[in-house]
Amino acid sequence: MSAKNKDIYSFEEGSLDLKPLLGGKGASLGEMTTLGLPVPPGMTVTTEACNLYYENNEKLTEELKEGIKEYLIELEEKTGKNFGDNDSPLLLSIRSGATISMPGMMDTILNLGLNDQAVEGFAKETNDERFAYDCYRRFIQMFGNVVLKIEGYKFGRGLDELKEEVGAENDLALTTEDLKELVSRYKEIIKDEAGIDFPQDPMEQLITAVEAVFGSWNNKRAIIYRDAHEIDHSLGTAVNIQTMVFGNMGDGSGTGVVFTRNPSTGENKLYGEYLLNAQGEDVVAGIRTPQSIQTLKEQLPEVFDQLVEVTETLEEHYKDMQDIEFTIENGQLYLLQTRTGKRTAKAAIKIAADMVAEGLIEIDEALLRVEPKHIEKVLHRQIDPEVETEVIAKGLPASPGAASGEVVFSADEAEELKEKGKNVLLVSLETTPEDIHGVIAAEGVLTTRGGMTSHAAVVARGMGKSCVCGCEGINIDFEVEEFVVGDTTVKKGDNLTINGGTGEVMVGSVKMTEPKLSEECQQILNWADEYRDLGVRANADNGPDAQKAYEFGTEGIGLCRTEHMFMAPDRVPIVQKLILSESDAEKEEALTKLEPMQRQDFEEIFTALKGKPVTVRLLDPPLHEFLPDLTELVKEVTELQQSDANEELKEKQELLRKVKDMNESNPMLGFRGCRLGIMIPEIYEMQVSAIFKAAIKLVKEGKEVEPEIMLPLITHVNEFKTLRTRVEKVADQLLEEAGLDLEYKIGTMIELPRACMTADQIAEEADFFSFGTNDLTQTTFGFSRDDAESKFLHYYVEKELLPENPFISLDADGVGRLVNLATDSGREVNPDLKVGICGEHGGEPKSIALCHEYGLNYVSCSPYRVPVARLAAAQAKIKSE
Amino acid sequence: MSAKNKDIYSFEEGSLDLKPLLGGKGASLGEMTTLGLPVPPGMTVTTEACNLYYENNEKLTEELKEGIKEYLIELEEKTGKNFGDNDSPLLLSIRSGATISMPGMMDTILNLGLNDQAVEGFAKETNDERFAYDCYRRFIQMFGNVVLKIEGYKFGRGLDELKEEVGAENDLALTTEDLKELVSRYKEIIKDEAGIDFPQDPMEQLITAVEAVFGSWNNKRAIIYRDAHEIDHSLGTAVNIQTMVFGNMGDGSGTGVVFTRNPSTGENKLYGEYLLNAQGEDVVAGIRTPQSIQTLKEQLPEVFDQLVEVTETLEEHYKDMQDIEFTIENGQLYLLQTRTGKRTAKAAIKIAADMVAEGLIEIDEALLRVEPKHIEKVLHRQIDPEVETEVIAKGLPASPGAASGEVVFSADEAEELKEKGKNVLLVSLETTPEDIHGVIAAEGVLTTRGGMTSHAAVVARGMGKSCVCGCEGINIDFEVEEFVVGDTTVKKGDNLTINGGTGEVMVGSVKMTEPKLSEECQQILNWADEYRDLGVRANADNGPDAQKAYEFGTEGIGLCRTEHMFMAPDRVPIVQKLILSESDAEKEEALTKLEPMQRQDFEEIFTALKGKPVTVRLLDPPLHEFLPDLTELVKEVTELQQSDANEELKEKQELLRKVKDMNESNPMLGFRGCRLGIMIPEIYEMQVSAIFKAAIKLVKEGKEVEPEIMLPLITHVNEFKTLRTRVEKVADQLLEEAGLDLEYKIGTMIELPRACMTADQIAEEADFFSFGTNDLTQTTFGFSRDDAESKFLHYYVEKELLPENPFISLDADGVGRLVNLATDSGREVNPDLKVGICGEHGGEPKSIALCHEYGLNYVSCSPYRVPVARLAAAQAKIKSE
Repeated sequence: MSAKNKDIYSFEEGSLDLKPLLGGKGASLGEMTTLGLPVPPGMTVTTEACNLYYENNEKLTEELKEGIKEYLIELEEKTGKNFGDNDSPLLLSIRSGATISMPGMMDTILNLGLNDQAVEGFAKETNDERFAYDCYRRFIQMFGNVVLKIEGYKFGRGLDELKEEVGAENDLALTTEDLKELVSRYKEIIKDEAGIDFPQDPMEQLITAVEAVFGSWNNKRAIIYRDAHEIDHSLGTAVNIQTMVFGNMGDGSGTGVVFTRNPSTGENKLYGEYLLNAQGEDVVAGIRTPQSIQTLKEQLPEVFDQLVEVTETLEEHYKDMQDIEFTIENGQLYLLQTRTGKRTAKAAIKIAADMVAEGLIEIDEALLRVEPKHIEKVLHRQIDPEVETEVIAKGLPASPGAASGEVVFSADEAEELKEKGKNVLLVSLETTPEDIHGVIAAEGVLTTRGGMTSHAAVVARGMGKSCVCGCEGINIDFEVEEFVVGDTTVKKGDNLTINGGTGEVMVGSVKMTEPKLSEECQQILNWADEYRDLGVRANADNGPDAQKAYEFGTEGIGLCRTEHMFMAPDRVPIVQKLILSESDAEKEEALTKLEPMQRQDFEEIFTALKGKPVTVRLLDPPLHEFLPDLTELVKEVTELQQSDANEELKEKQELLRKVKDMNESNPMLGFRGCRLGIMIPEIYEMQVSAIFKAAIKLVKEGKEVEPEIMLPLITHVNEFKTLRTRVEKVADQLLEEAGLDLEYKIGTMIELPRACMTADQIAEEADFFSFGTNDLTQTTFGFSRDDAESKFLHYYVEKELLPENPFISLDADGVGRLVNLATDSGREVNPDLKVGICGEHGGEPKSIALCHEYGLNYVSCSPYRVPVARLAAAQAKIKSE
Repeated sequence: MSAKNKDIYSFEEGSLDLKPLLGGKGASLGEMTTLGLPVPPGMTVTTEACNLYYENNEKLTEELKEGIKEYLIELEEKTGKNFGDNDSPLLLSIRSGATISMPGMMDTILNLGLNDQAVEGFAKETNDERFAYDCYRRFIQMFGNVVLKIEGYKFGRGLDELKEEVGAENDLALTTEDLKELVSRYKEIIKDEAGIDFPQDPMEQLITAVEAVFGSWNNKRAIIYRDAHEIDHSLGTAVNIQTMVFGNMGDGSGTGVVFTRNPSTGENKLYGEYLLNAQGEDVVAGIRTPQSIQTLKEQLPEVFDQLVEVTETLEEHYKDMQDIEFTIENGQLYLLQTRTGKRTAKAAIKIAADMVAEGLIEIDEALLRVEPKHIEKVLHRQIDPEVETEVIAKGLPASPGAASGEVVFSADEAEELKEKGKNVLLVSLETTPEDIHGVIAAEGVLTTRGGMTSHAAVVARGMGKSCVCGCEGINIDFEVEEFVVGDTTVKKGDNLTINGGTGEVMVGSVKMTEPKLSEECQQILNWADEYRDLGVRANADNGPDAQKAYEFGTEGIGLCRTEHMFMAPDRVPIVQKLILSESDAEKEEALTKLEPMQRQDFEEIFTALKGKPVTVRLLDPPLHEFLPDLTELVKEVTELQQSDANEELKEKQELLRKVKDMNESNPMLGFRGCRLGIMIPEIYEMQVSAIFKAAIKLVKEGKEVEPEIMLPLITHVNEFKTLRTRVEKVADQLLEEAGLDLEYKIGTMIELPRACMTADQIAEEADFFSFGTNDLTQTTFGFSRDDAESKFLHYYVEKELLPENPFISLDADGVGRLVNLATDSGREVNPDLKVGICGEHGGEPKSIALCHEYGLNYVSCSPYRVPVARLAAAQAKIKSE
């Protein structure tokens, strides 16, 4: 065994540990070889060599070329064949293999090593001249396309022309002589397009092919894919040079892809597809619709048994569901790749839970196997089972979940409409790696061809998008931009719904339902609860949301925004009267009307929470949010001034005067939050009264209630002191009158930098802190979210001026440091201080990990993110240990 | 000597060290007694006793009453008189005496100890029955007014009625019998109003009088005064019980106030006023216009010599200018009080400088003696000497500086109009402590009566307001609200100007000039420069301001705001074209026009600074600030829609569309600062080009230039990196083309909390930080200054929710901590980092002290505050040592 060039590893030298160096495919080929599994021998040129290639002006270095030659000699020894030999030529496949899988994104060349002489030897050796020339013409086409960059359709046209000339209906009808003619014509194409003769030197073929595969790391679709999946562009790909095996040597041969478990449902049963007498690319590219793996049992029973044995060995070894590529050459099974299988969210959850039950993995490992976004996805909407749906077609259920959108027929158009805010469904014959941007943009994908492992299916599952594949009943007319199925015609722009869980296609936007958690998901979440330190609460402003949060396992309400209660259409007029009241009597009247409404809200929320704590934030937004828009009003008044409507004019002018008076330069930093509470005490008094009247009523009914009053936008401890006294006065009086001794807490949103910097002072007075990281991010960054996102923030994220949108993922360096500092200094003076977070970050896994790190007591997020947060909190704990 | 009750101190026990306990007057009486100076004996009831009084429901405790009795026995022994004695009664004055002087704000009672018997004994002893009864009637009036809260005018009316009945033209015309009758009538008033007989028991008189003086600590005018002067309301006042001496026992008697130096100019010459045959209150209240102290030399030469000797002793002892109250009783000089004399800013500066020259004090002490606001005041405007003024009257030059405003005749009205934003001049016969709010509200005060030490004069000097006193030529008709002088009538609301430095009164608003620094002031500032560590720079946006700053001793420009250069009326249209440009060509055209204009600005500023560093901040405000107002435009378009002006409508609609497009919810946190620079590179490129073309031109002319480019509103280090690269590209190319090797710096405003929290990251890239504490205060507090001040901030400060307006005085706990933290963490990674502050706080003494504490390199403030900052910086250094 050679050890001369460590930019190259024979498969025997490879192992999974070397994945960063060898790429996923190379490492797995090494690992399988070491396990003694049937792998065609070969070598891996490392990812480091890829970087050397780029450093060396996109050429292999001389050292590397020498290394390849040396390893090739070993390979010849192992196989007993010789590269470029006229009798028994060694044929090679050249495949990319990145550290992080990028299926179909980079290039592959097969049958390398054939030339005008070797093809003759190969024909003799296989005793099948037609097959040999078929391999040769395929090789020339791939080489021309991948290495010489000749557009694929030119070869396709050559093939079509020949078929027409000889009257062949399909490829199989072509004779050996036809294929020889095709080889000749392909060589002409190469000469014409690339200006060179097709290289006959196998070593030249090999070196340029390796270079081409390295070069494909930076093709456009690969770059888009890495951007979409946040893969580092500097990783590079390895190249695997492997002895060819042939699935297309007759009906005792074949090729396929098998998953050790069902990647869509997670069911523990071999799942996959194969095609007899075919090469691997035929399955992946979805050109022919393959057969289910289960039928192999009958077609080639021995091979099937061997496959079962091998897949069990692999899952046992890797302790995770495997996605395996295999080829059968004349009844002999070969493994070409194994990797951890991509799976749907549902499958990920089921597999993780099952594997714990099977004793394959521990609970903590299972918790890490499920991604928070998996939980989020299974919480996605499904088609309402109560609704009668008219199914116009049915395809393969390639990626679960339902999706509705306007039909588009091209990836570019999907992207364009998405940017305009439309939801679109991408409908296509089949997607290719070039369509990746369209899949990203679409709500879901519907294809008429291809199977469960076709490009569209794999990519959609990875992204958690709904996908229906191989829906052959649909006939697309790209010219007039419509498709016909039965007697239904669907035009571009029409609404369509697909159910990726069943494969059904329906016209229109079908009503969806809220999802339920599977048993396995409940299991995973229960385990998560056992592991996590962080509490999980929900943000909910009404009874139904509170109820949903309770079902999803919330430990309380972390933020109940009372302004949403003011926004209901029947309440806005009363709120406006309150704001515009000229006398105490008018104000009093409006408040008297609002109080029972608020009380009812609180009763519902308290009831739903069954005694778990409910943090109610007193009114926060500036009052002018409840009033008509200033510019609209200016327009109305100006119009009225030109009309005769004197009465109305007077009224509107008066309203305009008040709206102008309340208008603010920067309402975000203006007269809102506790400032309102301090300056207009009646509003908070009404709210506190409503909260405690609701609580008292329920307690008297024997229910448990745990109210927590949250004062918003505190910037100075004196604001808190002033309001705490007022809240206590109202609450204690009501409790005293009711003869109850109900415990309650009074705390504050920490959402201004000054509150963070003086957290020690505030903590002396407050029972709890809840970080309002939305506003804290606005003030800490000086970003008005409304203005920033459209005007510069998207650009900043795109150009990497900011690593992420800080409104989505908590900014650790700035906002996070403030949160951490405030938590520590608050706890120092008040060790009992309860600390949580109730911004949108409370449901975002990376932010949750930071909250765990800062030692917060809980995160609070939207009800649908509660399960996500439960898992993310457990993962944060496990990862930090 | 008794030591029984340490809530009481005899003067022999008192000293200046005990000022917090004994109050200013009590401590100085003690100190003077100890120095052997002629002080009528007495005792001081302490400020702690005042607090005991309030704790004891506004009554003296029994212990305290006993204590007073015991000390009284000692006093009787010392004086040989007996309290309430029928032959030689001990008469007492009862005066307040707070730790911090509050002249005239609290109550005083004189002649206490008189009753129907004692007055007879006192008459015999003084051999002046009329005098004794005059004292008695005065005592009853004061007691009735102060202790029994009977309104003063009721006694005044009694006096007037009697004078009318007996045909007396003035008080002096009343006979002994008249005064006896008056005593009788006053006792009737007491009986009628208070429902009690006038108390004959001297001890009862004494105890209730002490209680009344303690009670006067919390009278309305005292509270207003303390609010205005930021005096702690919990300090309490002491009460001084002192043997009476009488300045009104004939022409060998008198009373006066003397300053050891001129409190208006600082001249080292005895200065003051006295009245013969008068009691002290006559001088202070300004009822009679007193004589200059220099005339005493002729009237009572021996007393004058004694006075000179005593004042020299006192100034030598206190090492500061003294304000001394004295009484002459039958040729015998008594000192009633000495305290550090209030003085004008001009006097404070001159006295401090002179006393160093005289060897009385050290330089550091002199620097502490001058308050930063003194420097600010001497920088106040004066009447332009070039202007011909028509002086309509002349009074006493009571407090220097010139002032213009609308005439008002009552303190209440002064306050009302001031709140409406008007500048007013308060014109009155004389001010009383009740008028304090009017003096605060007015630009200046003009009185027709009273002297240089009258209430109006003292208060105005303390506040640095212009004041002209005793302007007897003016006749006010309060009924019709006007005054007449000669043949000029000035009505309420007319503009008037006074010159407090000359006593002149002029009709209209007279043109003022910018002040110059006196020699002594220059001396003080030069000493300050020697002491201070903090550099002082100026904020200036144009040549003249930069020139002024240079004259005032700036060490550079800390903030040159380039947007002001965009706001000039001839430039705004070009700036609008730039903003609204639809094509690159239009944009280019606008920029090409603007660049030479900016270049000219920079040339002027660089030239004025003579090689000192100039920090230029690139464009900061949101661009829509340069466009028409949105609501105005909506109004215009709506109006045009109803007219036939189609062409104009179209144009305005297009403009409206753009303005709407650029409109922001919170422009303060929106598309401005470096965000503009990043998204629209051409603007900053033009500005950098203008700066360096100006610099290159001047350097080629042999001048020195030190440009510093400041990038505004950096929140993430990546913004800084991006812009630094762009700035360097433009600058270096211009310098290279010019063949110059000019050093320049690139730094940033730190004005967002995130920049503070990540200062270490930014400091790795930046050459300097300049804290923009205006914006930093807005984001740290979450206060939009525009909205906050009118809507809640004034209330917050008034109600002490905030200790101070954080936009005026740097908030140490929040904003200050961020500044400190950012400075430290920035310097840790970049020890050469230059750190300054350029918010408005840079010229505010308390904030400057914080900047010194944080170890900043410099403060930058408006040119007129540069001298203030130089002194404040030195004081911060001296105080921190």
